[in-house]
Amino acid sequence: MPANVDLSKLRHGTELLKRGFAAMQKGGVVMDVTNAEQAAIAEDAGAVAVMALERVPADIRAQGGVARMADPRIVQNIIDTVTIPVMAKARIGHLVEAHILEGLGVDMIDESEVLTPADPFFHIDKRPYTVPYVCGARSLGEATRRIFEGAAMVRTKGEAGTGNVIEAVRHRRLISRGIEEVQRLDKDALRELAAHYAGRYAVLLGEARREASLDPTPAAKDHLWADLTLETATDGLFDVLLDIHKLGRLPVVDFAAGGIATPADAALMMRLGNDGVFVGSGIFKSNDPERRARAIVEAVLHHDDPKVLAEVSIGLGEAMPGKTIESIAPQDRLQERGW
Amino acid sequence: MPANVDLSKLRHGTELLKRGFAAMQKGGVVMDVTNAEQAAIAEDAGAVAVMALERVPADIRAQGGVARMADPRIVQNIIDTVTIPVMAKARIGHLVEAHILEGLGVDMIDESEVLTPADPFFHIDKRPYTVPYVCGARSLGEATRRIFEGAAMVRTKGEAGTGNVIEAVRHRRLISRGIEEVQRLDKDALRELAAHYAGRYAVLLGEARREASLDPTPAAKDHLWADLTLETATDGLFDVLLDIHKLGRLPVVDFAAGGIATPADAALMMRLGNDGVFVGSGIFKSNDPERRARAIVEAVLHHDDPKVLAEVSIGLGEAMPGKTIESIAPQDRLQERGW
Repeated sequence: MPANVDLSKLRHGTELLKRGFAAMQKGGVVMDVTNAEQAAIAEDAGAVAVMALERVPADIRAQGGVARMADPRIVQNIIDTVTIPVMAKARIGHLVEAHILEGLGVDMIDESEVLTPADPFFHIDKRPYTVPYVCGARSLGEATRRIFEGAAMVRTKGEAGTGNVIEAVRHRRLISRGIEEVQRLDKDALRELAAHYAGRYAVLLGEARREASLDPTPAAKDHLWADLTLETATDGLFDVLLDIHKLGRLPVVDFAAGGIATPADAALMMRLGNDGVFVGSGIFKSNDPERRARAIVEAVLHHDDPKVLAEVSIGLGEAMPGKTIESIAPQDRLQERGW
Repeated sequence: MPANVDLSKLRHGTELLKRGFAAMQKGGVVMDVTNAEQAAIAEDAGAVAVMALERVPADIRAQGGVARMADPRIVQNIIDTVTIPVMAKARIGHLVEAHILEGLGVDMIDESEVLTPADPFFHIDKRPYTVPYVCGARSLGEATRRIFEGAAMVRTKGEAGTGNVIEAVRHRRLISRGIEEVQRLDKDALRELAAHYAGRYAVLLGEARREASLDPTPAAKDHLWADLTLETATDGLFDVLLDIHKLGRLPVVDFAAGGIATPADAALMMRLGNDGVFVGSGIFKSNDPERRARAIVEAVLHHDDPKVLAEVSIGLGEAMPGKTIESIAPQDRLQERGW
């Protein structure tokens, strides 16, 4: 991006502008909030943005049922309360929830596996939107597909609502390792990898083919994915992989998310190469949200300084109780949603 | 249909008339109601029709047991209360429940997997009835079979009673995908596909054949399916496929159903190409049925307008709590009923 671009004017628009907005969040902490009071606490604590949602992941996990976009009034109240950017979550594939959030004027949409997915075959085609998107990923393949689809920011999925950082670390390491491998590949091998990643779009149509016993051409003809074929997907994914090969990192901002509960957790993710951190249940499920929010912001800024990290970690009170991953049945793991 | 036909006179009768009645519902919302009070709320909210039944799908799911046609008195009360068309559900294959409902004067019969199926081999032969039928489908094969059998309207099955839209999206995408594939096929391939679809009628007779060690000719000797052989089924399905090939859509109206709980869900199905929406548990299992019913009608009318969609979504209160599909054992999924 040219150095003389005024980023504050570039919230919505082309891919360059969308990625530019995402880059403005770098080095920062985005906090989940469910009402205007929490949003004000997050802003005071130094959050770079807030994520508006109806229930934090720990509650979604505990209460079960279908989790959907927040009531537009909640989103509106939060937008009216804070001066920092407001993000909000839409269900995977729910292009109407996304359309509504865009209309409300949110600054970024999180197409999120924390909500119940709405489409078993496709993520939203994020390219035609002027609002930027962030999407979750567990691996370089998922990250590459989301960027090809138009995401301006990637976050690790982690395992939301657990207060357990291990899955965020797993996904960060898998993505980093994937990037290293991509850097060692030549163009032919990158093209082959792109075709392999594109296979996921074809797999999704397997059910239709089984039913009809027809030609297995994997063209997806939804009006919003009208141009998607194995070839166009491979071309698009190849372009993303060329960027990754050249840059030695994702071509978009890459945050950590899912299970971050302490200042040390947040700093760990920065040390492992993330550009910033999302904290969901970790703040408002702890017993002193104001102090913890501030401490996590400090920890991200000073992730390399054990003195500061120790100081901000002192006397924070109880963190959220949390869950081991083994205690969650595989079908209840949110990270399994999306592909 | 000729432009000068007065549709209001064409409720019952020939296939053309039956499809004409179904087409009158286009762009509208059909709401499940269990009594006259709910029917009046639905009519006031702008429903194009109501569906009379004894228990909404969420209750059928929660209470278990055998779900049957509603008490005729309930149906009669609803017919006497509203001026909009009244539909009612009969069990799959239960031609006597259908006959009773027709006698009561309902405007359309839903041969519905939400009730407990009555016939393991055959859906009702809907051709001789003067009342039009709507049937559920998960795929183009099911839709084609139901149209061949005389259905004047198709709806996606979704997964009723869950408040979870993902299965309605799955079935809509599978049907759309099937239609696109059919458009690429020549006559020989369409005939082959018709024979493949007809195979389902033969498979259904496998048990009878094993039992009797009889001639494997799949003639169905129920008095209402006396003319059914693999050949007549293939001929009939081929005719339906030719229509689909020519039109690029189903030759009957195609609604979404199953799991629609929010205005955004209803608008999503319209964006994905449905002609209208059935809402079952979504309205009377929410905490403000009047407002939600009105909001869903508005959302279907303005499915492309994010401002209207945001407005009608504000402050609707709790949607029905809902269920993830993974939490429902495969044998308890209503969509598996019918074939």
